[in-house]
Amino acid sequence: MEPTYIALLTDFGMRDPYVGVMKGVISSVSPHTPVIDITHEIHPQNISQAAFILGRSYHYFHTGTIFCVVVDPGVGGQRKALAVKTKNYCFVGPDNGVLSSALEKEEVMEMVEITNDRYILTPVSSTFHGRDVFAPAAAHISHGIPLRYLGPQTFHYQGLDFPGPEQGKFMIKGHVVYKDHFGNLVTDIEKNEIEGRTVSAIHFMGRELKRINQSYDESHPGELLAILGSFDTLEIAANQDSASRILGEPQRIPVEIWFEDEKVESKTLL
Amino acid sequence: MEPTYIALLTDFGMRDPYVGVMKGVISSVSPHTPVIDITHEIHPQNISQAAFILGRSYHYFHTGTIFCVVVDPGVGGQRKALAVKTKNYCFVGPDNGVLSSALEKEEVMEMVEITNDRYILTPVSSTFHGRDVFAPAAAHISHGIPLRYLGPQTFHYQGLDFPGPEQGKFMIKGHVVYKDHFGNLVTDIEKNEIEGRTVSAIHFMGRELKRINQSYDESHPGELLAILGSFDTLEIAANQDSASRILGEPQRIPVEIWFEDEKVESKTLL
Amino acid sequence: MEPTYIALLTDFGMRDPYVGVMKGVISSVSPHTPVIDITHEIHPQNISQAAFILGRSYHYFHTGTIFCVVVDPGVGGQRKALAVKTKNYCFVGPDNGVLSSALEKEEVMEMVEITNDRYILTPVSSTFHGRDVFAPAAAHISHGIPLRYLGPQTFHYQGLDFPGPEQGKFMIKGHVVYKDHFGNLVTDIEKNEIEGRTVSAIHFMGRELKRINQSYDESHPGELLAILGSFDTLEIAANQDSASRILGEPQRIPVEIWFEDEKVESKTLL
Repeated sequence: MEPTYIALLTDFGMRDPYVGVMKGVISSVSPHTPVIDITHEIHPQNISQAAFILGRSYHYFHTGTIFCVVVDPGVGGQRKALAVKTKNYCFVGPDNGVLSSALEKEEVMEMVEITNDRYILTPVSSTFHGRDVFAPAAAHISHGIPLRYLGPQTFHYQGLDFPGPEQGKFMIKGHVVYKDHFGNLVTDIEKNEIEGRTVSAIHFMGRELKRINQSYDESHPGELLAILGSFDTLEIAANQDSASRILGEPQRIPVEIWFEDEKVESKTLL
Repeated sequence: MEPTYIALLTDFGMRDPYVGVMKGVISSVSPHTPVIDITHEIHPQNISQAAFILGRSYHYFHTGTIFCVVVDPGVGGQRKALAVKTKNYCFVGPDNGVLSSALEKEEVMEMVEITNDRYILTPVSSTFHGRDVFAPAAAHISHGIPLRYLGPQTFHYQGLDFPGPEQGKFMIKGHVVYKDHFGNLVTDIEKNEIEGRTVSAIHFMGRELKRINQSYDESHPGELLAILGSFDTLEIAANQDSASRILGEPQRIPVEIWFEDEKVESKTLL
Repeated sequence: MEPTYIALLTDFGMRDPYVGVMKGVISSVSPHTPVIDITHEIHPQNISQAAFILGRSYHYFHTGTIFCVVVDPGVGGQRKALAVKTKNYCFVGPDNGVLSSALEKEEVMEMVEITNDRYILTPVSSTFHGRDVFAPAAAHISHGIPLRYLGPQTFHYQGLDFPGPEQGKFMIKGHVVYKDHFGNLVTDIEKNEIEGRTVSAIHFMGRELKRINQSYDESHPGELLAILGSFDTLEIAANQDSASRILGEPQRIPVEIWFEDEKVESKTLL
């Protein structure tokens, strides 16, 4: 029988034992469940960054994977703890928007608020629901516990404040939403909105690029370039260099991509 | 059958291949043993930090887990290599105090010095007993080898120099012993020494707090607060901010917690 | 049946979700394959560093392990994607020299260029062959797919520009090729070239050491020393201190080791 994976995404870092303790709790509840780390280096309490990374990553995982996402500035307060089953996956985390980018792309089948003491560690601490609530809930789900055992059904989840890209007939205006450790500036303009159209220009920070590269080395070393990057979105990068070193550390700067051809409404999404 | 886990705690960092090589050795000896990282970012050679983290973390792991702890400034010298079986767990590491905080809380059943060439990699290097001694010993134990095969029995393990908190009738005086990556200042004053008593004040660095928060967001953003934190001890934190950014990087600063009611001697421990 | 491990070595860092996504892809293709991280903190695009670490680490892993190595500045360009079966292991990665230090020590049995769309994710991106090519290829191999299914046979792999140590009758001249996170300066002079011979002196940066330590603590705290280190090569270290803090951050500085006895030609290699 195939194992059900749990994938972890947190802002806990790798220096403290917090992630290890979550895995310890999972191993206690469900010893055969393998665990994958997506990353634990989300900028502390940066919900929208975590939401973006989850939304751009989850579909590469094995069907049935349970995503346990803990970026949780409101821990110990009033926000709900959610467990959500979609057609292909399951998502567990605080109801603060961190799950929203993934859930928007999925067909939600069932959503509950995690409240049942039987499937969490009690007494629940004020500071570490990753250990006390989300890890044990995810582990029980991977062990086969039906979602409805965890708590009452709920029908609404929190979204994010940030708007997505604006679509024009000949243009899409998005933003740099992430900087990776190579210094690539990742936008929220999706590959499938660009592919098949004829690009005329890309504008950002007063600069202009005329085309999208097929590979980094089509540009000279150190030169800025646009490419469909590793998040399957438009990126500003530099061949053998770091775009963020060249451009500084821009926060949510706008990026416009202009096309020669109009947007076709009924295009098939990837 | 349930797998026996090995949990790793070292100061090897994630940049070098040392942890990966330890896992390679474990996979060679015992291919079905799953491995969990507690953390590898212990400050280099900081034995007391590793002892604190182990002592506050191990009981969240699956019964039977083998903790392989390598913070080992005396590697290649005279210190002994220990394997210790307690009622619920097993601990492998150098005899320099790093295991002591956990062992003090456990009922020790059997303790041996690891000396048998058959269960370690020979020739043993001078610098990397994590790979040559502790990883293979832990892997053989997880594979079912009895402790007594590893070497002669021993009856003493090294403790730490640092004293624990001082207890008064109306007061406990502890210390900040750890700073986590959120900037929370973690003390060694345990939650179960505080719960059920009426707090009158918390004193540190000339400051006073009047109460223990139930959650971060009971305080204003940026405000210092006291909370029972993720190590199940008293912490100094700040809502949506970093206490260590506000207070600097205090080393072992004293923290006093005062109560209105006297200490009850026969309280049940958690 | 024993599982076939995949071991990952990349320059992707732990901050971005790239490594997690590779593991997600592996879990999709081959859900029972366990994965070990060697390290993901290779300096970005530093092929020779990755080659050195792989070459000094792989033989500690379980026989049959598949090494998936992605340090790939030419991604999206013309370089080939390789899968190589040796007598004991399997190696998957770009053909840019990153596999060469390991392959030189192994008996190569079969080598193919990965081209078959059936075993990779299509359309292949321009920037992330770790996800689209190397992870799925490694996962299919771990699942039992024969190498020849992946693409056409090839008979040549790229080497590295850097020369290895020079051998004299009474001397070996190597270089510092790696600095670990303890500040140890790791050379490429192998332990088995030194053991059994009588050392007269070690020279580097105008300094002289007279002997090789058996352990760090044979020297005074803070003192520079030479030792056969954790990569099974000669290292410059400091007892309870960092050699790189004392010496600066030397790049490929030469290190000479002089012997009283001549090199014996027919010595048995480790």
